[in-house]
Amino acid sequence: MEKEIIVQKFGGSSVANIDRIKNVAQRVVAYKNKHTDIAVVVSALGDTTDELEALALGLSKTPPEREMDMLLSTGEQISCALLAIAIKELGYDAISFTGSQVGIKTDKTHTKARIMTIDGKRINRAFKENKIVIVAGYQGVTANDEITTLGRGGSDLTAVALAQALKAKVCEIYTDVDGIYTTDPRIVKEARKIKTITFEEMLEMASLGAQVMQARSIEVAKRFNIPLHVRSSFSKEEGTMITKENEKLEEIAVRGITCNKNEAKITICSVPDKPGIAAKIFEEISKQGINVDTIVQNVPHDKLSDISFTVPKGDFNKAIKATTAIGNRIKAGEILEDRNIARVSLVGSGMRSHSGIAAKMFSTLADNHINIEMISTSEISVSCIIAQDSADKAVRSLHKAFKLEQP
Amino acid sequence: MEKEIIVQKFGGSSVANIDRIKNVAQRVVAYKNKHTDIAVVVSALGDTTDELEALALGLSKTPPEREMDMLLSTGEQISCALLAIAIKELGYDAISFTGSQVGIKTDKTHTKARIMTIDGKRINRAFKENKIVIVAGYQGVTANDEITTLGRGGSDLTAVALAQALKAKVCEIYTDVDGIYTTDPRIVKEARKIKTITFEEMLEMASLGAQVMQARSIEVAKRFNIPLHVRSSFSKEEGTMITKENEKLEEIAVRGITCNKNEAKITICSVPDKPGIAAKIFEEISKQGINVDTIVQNVPHDKLSDISFTVPKGDFNKAIKATTAIGNRIKAGEILEDRNIARVSLVGSGMRSHSGIAAKMFSTLADNHINIEMISTSEISVSCIIAQDSADKAVRSLHKAFKLEQP
Repeated sequence: MEKEIIVQKFGGSSVANIDRIKNVAQRVVAYKNKHTDIAVVVSALGDTTDELEALALGLSKTPPEREMDMLLSTGEQISCALLAIAIKELGYDAISFTGSQVGIKTDKTHTKARIMTIDGKRINRAFKENKIVIVAGYQGVTANDEITTLGRGGSDLTAVALAQALKAKVCEIYTDVDGIYTTDPRIVKEARKIKTITFEEMLEMASLGAQVMQARSIEVAKRFNIPLHVRSSFSKEEGTMITKENEKLEEIAVRGITCNKNEAKITICSVPDKPGIAAKIFEEISKQGINVDTIVQNVPHDKLSDISFTVPKGDFNKAIKATTAIGNRIKAGEILEDRNIARVSLVGSGMRSHSGIAAKMFSTLADNHINIEMISTSEISVSCIIAQDSADKAVRSLHKAFKLEQP
Repeated sequence: MEKEIIVQKFGGSSVANIDRIKNVAQRVVAYKNKHTDIAVVVSALGDTTDELEALALGLSKTPPEREMDMLLSTGEQISCALLAIAIKELGYDAISFTGSQVGIKTDKTHTKARIMTIDGKRINRAFKENKIVIVAGYQGVTANDEITTLGRGGSDLTAVALAQALKAKVCEIYTDVDGIYTTDPRIVKEARKIKTITFEEMLEMASLGAQVMQARSIEVAKRFNIPLHVRSSFSKEEGTMITKENEKLEEIAVRGITCNKNEAKITICSVPDKPGIAAKIFEEISKQGINVDTIVQNVPHDKLSDISFTVPKGDFNKAIKATTAIGNRIKAGEILEDRNIARVSLVGSGMRSHSGIAAKMFSTLADNHINIEMISTSEISVSCIIAQDSADKAVRSLHKAFKLEQP
């Protein structure tokens, strides 16, 4: 019988201290048997990465990226060695590897490298010796033996790429929540854990503000069709499976509701209504590396229209500066700022076939006296920009209206 | 003109915090010019190694050595990346390397590996690009790409081996003292910094209790004739040069005085005076891995003699147990214990040609009413075991009698 391979990834909070590392070791060995080989990917212990970063910033405001990779990659090397020690203490054989040692080859983009290839040979050799393999997440090595890191959420990426290279049956992502919820349980106490969700829905939810997993890793899992199981390090319960859409998956119109309070709105008033003027504005803004989200243009009056758009709050000041400059140049009117907004979105691949979802969303908000400032839609989502003060109320009423508390 | 190469090694206390790392960066760049290339070896920041070790011991009383190397080698990787950042901040080009990256190949003895070869190619390439090279001390890599560490004092060893591989002019060892002294300045305030000392004298002083450098690194420097300069990270003053004996070096009878309070004495009374009996005793003790130092056997009376020897205090209990067992077997008498001893030693290669040193030592101690319990000599040293309470007085009176306070 062919052995099954599982990849398990544990985040920083799952290995934040000695007791939690012991807990992870116990979780891992519970899955190990003669028919199953396990590769574990670990992030750095708790706040290690932040602490190392603070040291570097104490020496330079702009530390060179190559040296940052040299520095930050140690965090994962520490946690994988410690986990190997903890597993061996339980009487199982284990071996830890750096990204370099297992041949995770990346391009040369320090601090946000892309994985090019993974050489599974060394891991497969360890599997043959019946060892549990621990791999340092978040890191790789260039063809010239330079250490690289993969950027935020990089350990998830290591796990997914490893699952692909090893042809793993599933990639389990252990975290401090026990799965993906229909919406944030801190806002709606009736929020329900989702059993199964498609890659596309998960990607949409991540891009709209759900923070469980980085979009990049889900994209890779989708491309190679690697089932992801998002679950808790602290409980044995099943979490949420993220898989390819298939016919057995019930067509649910709305899978979940996200709420993003990290955007701000900018409006340029009285923009001359000439062809190419919007292009000019957003070219200028994107030159500054700012990601513009929803854009809405009013119907023009007297050949003048208002253009509103949202940007991440972190880019707000930069965006205001760029907008003011271009506004002067094109002789537009006032620039209005609004930091008090929230994006509330419904996500579900069933929207493709179900109609009336958007209409029901708008009427639910209207019934609750919530004013909609902007609307945007994709194939599998509808988003409304509303006042931030009303966001929680909006999420609660929508959750109820679409009966998401019911399985 | 051929470029000169210098290797500089900074210990953990020299890089214990942000300010000290900045200080080291300034020291390094002060030496860099177009005629000089610098390779810097750094230890882990302050107590990092101890902290990592504590984490491992929290998981297992006997953590596997391979994983310990994986874990502990990160300490030096962190400090070399930070130093590279600090140097670049001063406007000089610098690059950090792990032991693996610069090809420090070792044998497979985890936690105390021996360096087999160093491939200087990558460093020389960096030198050609006019970069200051920072190398993580204490670590290497086996032929199978397994990370190893070199044991206590391993960073000194990295520095000396690197100096040999790069054909460096000198290997500077920066530490928290400003050189080698004629004796411990905490005991004798007139103690004087020694300008030049031979490898042999330094080895003898290290083995007799001077703690500035590990004997292993001095031995390698001696074998390849690499001048060592032991100096302070916190002052610009010259420290102590450790070099090969040469004719210009003045033949000084006594170079320094060491005092070791970390030994204890064991005496087996009434040992039957038969051939081979001493061999039996010390075979048994060495089987336990205990290093016996000075041994003295009394002239026998009635075919019975007393045998005294010294052991490191850490091995004392083990030694007593072994001695009691063998004492019973050979029908010897009482076992006497004495933890209240000290070894006071004079060291100087001039002893080879100067006579009367030992005699003067004994009479000086006698004049000060200090009783000598045991004596041992080597070609370039004389040691007396005395009561520990008298040790400081002995060192002071000998320092004065041999006029070591005078240059």
